[in-house]
Amino acid sequence: MKSPSQVVIFGAAGDLALRKLLPALASLSAKSQPAEGFSVVGVSRREKTDAQFRAEIAEAMPPELQAAWATLAPRVSYLSGDVGSVEDLDRLSAALDALPGGRETGRLFYLSLKPDLFANAITNLASKGLLHMAEGEKVAWRRVVVEKPFGHDLPSAVALNRHVHTHLKEFQVYRIDHYLGKETVQNILGFRFHNAIFEPLWNRDHVELVQITVAEELGMERGRAAYYDGTGALRDMLQNHMLQVLSLIAMEPPASLDAKSVRAQKVAVLEALRPPDRADMKTDCVRARYREGVVRDQQVPGYLDEEGVPPGSSTETYVAVRCEIDTWRWSGVPILLRHGKRMKKRFTEVQVQFKTPPIQLFNKPEGLSDDEFRRKLRAGDLCQIRPNVLTLSIQPREAVHLSFGVKRPGPAMVMHDAELSFDYQNVFGSSSAPAYERLLLDALLGDATLFLRGDEIEASWRFADAMQAAWQGADAPPLREYDAGSWGPDEAQQLFHGCEGGWTRG
Amino acid sequence: MKSPSQVVIFGAAGDLALRKLLPALASLSAKSQPAEGFSVVGVSRREKTDAQFRAEIAEAMPPELQAAWATLAPRVSYLSGDVGSVEDLDRLSAALDALPGGRETGRLFYLSLKPDLFANAITNLASKGLLHMAEGEKVAWRRVVVEKPFGHDLPSAVALNRHVHTHLKEFQVYRIDHYLGKETVQNILGFRFHNAIFEPLWNRDHVELVQITVAEELGMERGRAAYYDGTGALRDMLQNHMLQVLSLIAMEPPASLDAKSVRAQKVAVLEALRPPDRADMKTDCVRARYREGVVRDQQVPGYLDEEGVPPGSSTETYVAVRCEIDTWRWSGVPILLRHGKRMKKRFTEVQVQFKTPPIQLFNKPEGLSDDEFRRKLRAGDLCQIRPNVLTLSIQPREAVHLSFGVKRPGPAMVMHDAELSFDYQNVFGSSSAPAYERLLLDALLGDATLFLRGDEIEASWRFADAMQAAWQGADAPPLREYDAGSWGPDEAQQLFHGCEGGWTRG
Repeated sequence: MKSPSQVVIFGAAGDLALRKLLPALASLSAKSQPAEGFSVVGVSRREKTDAQFRAEIAEAMPPELQAAWATLAPRVSYLSGDVGSVEDLDRLSAALDALPGGRETGRLFYLSLKPDLFANAITNLASKGLLHMAEGEKVAWRRVVVEKPFGHDLPSAVALNRHVHTHLKEFQVYRIDHYLGKETVQNILGFRFHNAIFEPLWNRDHVELVQITVAEELGMERGRAAYYDGTGALRDMLQNHMLQVLSLIAMEPPASLDAKSVRAQKVAVLEALRPPDRADMKTDCVRARYREGVVRDQQVPGYLDEEGVPPGSSTETYVAVRCEIDTWRWSGVPILLRHGKRMKKRFTEVQVQFKTPPIQLFNKPEGLSDDEFRRKLRAGDLCQIRPNVLTLSIQPREAVHLSFGVKRPGPAMVMHDAELSFDYQNVFGSSSAPAYERLLLDALLGDATLFLRGDEIEASWRFADAMQAAWQGADAPPLREYDAGSWGPDEAQQLFHGCEGGWTRG
Repeated sequence: MKSPSQVVIFGAAGDLALRKLLPALASLSAKSQPAEGFSVVGVSRREKTDAQFRAEIAEAMPPELQAAWATLAPRVSYLSGDVGSVEDLDRLSAALDALPGGRETGRLFYLSLKPDLFANAITNLASKGLLHMAEGEKVAWRRVVVEKPFGHDLPSAVALNRHVHTHLKEFQVYRIDHYLGKETVQNILGFRFHNAIFEPLWNRDHVELVQITVAEELGMERGRAAYYDGTGALRDMLQNHMLQVLSLIAMEPPASLDAKSVRAQKVAVLEALRPPDRADMKTDCVRARYREGVVRDQQVPGYLDEEGVPPGSSTETYVAVRCEIDTWRWSGVPILLRHGKRMKKRFTEVQVQFKTPPIQLFNKPEGLSDDEFRRKLRAGDLCQIRPNVLTLSIQPREAVHLSFGVKRPGPAMVMHDAELSFDYQNVFGSSSAPAYERLLLDALLGDATLFLRGDEIEASWRFADAMQAAWQGADAPPLREYDAGSWGPDEAQQLFHGCEGGWTRG
């Protein structure tokens, strides 16, 4: 039997640790996942005892996890310290050595810290030898989970990667994007590669367009506006979560589900992803900011009136862009990405819209001869085919829908729009584990498939930076406005130029 | 406004006329379909008055159609006569001339007669000039509906076609197969050619096999055994209804939905349909006869004990065959057809079973390395992929099901078999018109799309005759037995040789 692993959480007093990481660890502990178990050391600057720390955790723990927490609590300790302080790291090192397994077991360092502390934390951990491991080591491994954002643009991400790689091998680094921990995001892989019927359709010959939406009802949570204003919708959501979803949707089939195969194919998509040319930015990109409005019957302020937003801000809270993936599979297929805050409805959804049939046989208007029917079709005077659309709903409701036409009963060959539907909750209940639980387990097991590789992050930033750069200067798309609680700016519809259809409404 | 058409039913006292044709006509009348309306003349040998005939019809009319019947009754008359008698046809001719529209309106002659009377009836009608019309005539048209069976083998069908064509143009002949009047059968066309996503999958590259089942619970209805014994499952069901369904499933996309385009493509399928070689008949065909057994909790006799079955009968009440369609699209794809009487459950269903993905990524057993997993897969020790299956349920419940895999929630990439489903009744209610109503309307409107062309019937008989011929002689598949109320003979499973899967159970 292997010894229990050791989990070290830097930033253990923070929101993420208390609301996500420790509940996830409690849940894993209750399920005996992984089998060898683990101890937890929380590190934060403030002085407190183990008992105080456990009491804080217990208070934040949701009721349904209180029993699980009881299984973990005895193995949770606290160390007041600063990852920037070499002395504190000495104390941490001693504390870990004293835990079950000592140096001869795996150690997971979770950097739940402000991004500007990542580099220094890694340097200091490395200087104490805490990150050292031999390649292929299965027992006394050392891994570091790095929270997002990993950099704030391409140069900073490149610099951080370079720094990371001076102290760690790539296989030790677990860059997190919690979207990848969601069941429905992982199910994109299952859906595409377990079912042989979708792959033949999944390309430029049969797909008219792909749209991905992450719509939020939230505006600025308390105190977040100051940070958000320096980031914006593009870098806060589109660059990371949405490109991750897109890379799973658009990737080539991997040779296996291991980290190497999957991530290589994801990176290939991101490297081939092309934002609109500068000259097209006005027709292929819309950026906007919400005005005051009504969300779920509640009057909410406009972005400029949110606490902490500097006067004169030009930060976007909404971005929609039409891009392309320059691969053999996708060339020419419009890829439409949209994210906004303070929208009418919260939902995350992928829609793959298939082409219409090459000729229309059905829905001939009564009294028209075959010849007249075909003439009208050629002239574009009739278009009554709704394309087949595959919808992968990611949240709030996890579901698969495939729209298709069936004959409406009766003597005329008139088609009716129908839907084949599958709802996860109806089948599996609402028991799917939170994203962080899955990701922490994978990190403990050494499976990096659902974490981002260094070059993957860089490719994402390259895309975002190109967009951001095109937003400066003469050809920049103007910053539009939309009412809070609306579907976003009307101008976003223009991104469908040359295609049927419009933005999905969840 | 056109004059009302005239419908003449020969065999007006028969079961088909009373139970199907007159209710269908009543329903059309109530819906004012077609707009110009129609008169009905029933012809049969026995003497009776119009009032007596109407009373018989009213008695046979289902309650929900009594009101509809009231709209038609005044336009229904009776003529006692024999289609074999020239004098009687003179009286018919005079009666029709006296009806609204006289000779200047359309006339539909429905031969609801014993098959051996078809030829003579047509000769006699022609001899009185009752079938004469100019090509392209839109008003005073003359059409003949011929009931099934059209011939009892290829030579008789060829002879009947030849006879028909001496008196009628092909466009005047409406050979009926009431299966084509069913909504769900027609919807095969809609499903395939209105939705662009199925066509790319609908071929030998992606389809593993196709199976079509018509399973009946019924045995021999009273008095039917004597007829049935001279026919058998192959010619009673497979040769006509099942090959019709198959031709819609397998046809190339037509250029339009008109009779010419659709039937040309259906015929092309039937002409390319190849039964097993004689040498393969034993592995690719099972014929069987039911023994006594229990159907829906009721003890029922074996076929040999049914009233009217001659001793020593070797007629099959069950047939299953694996054939192929030698076209570019289907070459090499097993087409499995099965029909039986006295089976466990009544259902008609088409299943298109798609191939499994080229490599299996999911469902790796716990504890296996990627390499071991792939080695076991190559060795065939693991096969946990259920293929995607598209099921078109035709009766009793009209539905579409698409089975596919979704990820089971949890850390392992284990897939769960799920189903996308569409049920017609849930969406449209159970209001779809009976098959005969649709077909009578089409015949009145002059749309022959859902009727069989002469060469189509011949191609079907060519297939059936080849089967029947191979059932004589040394290589013939033995006549198996199965319990009434069972799934048929166990030997039928062998038809799946070399393929995954088995017979569907509705």
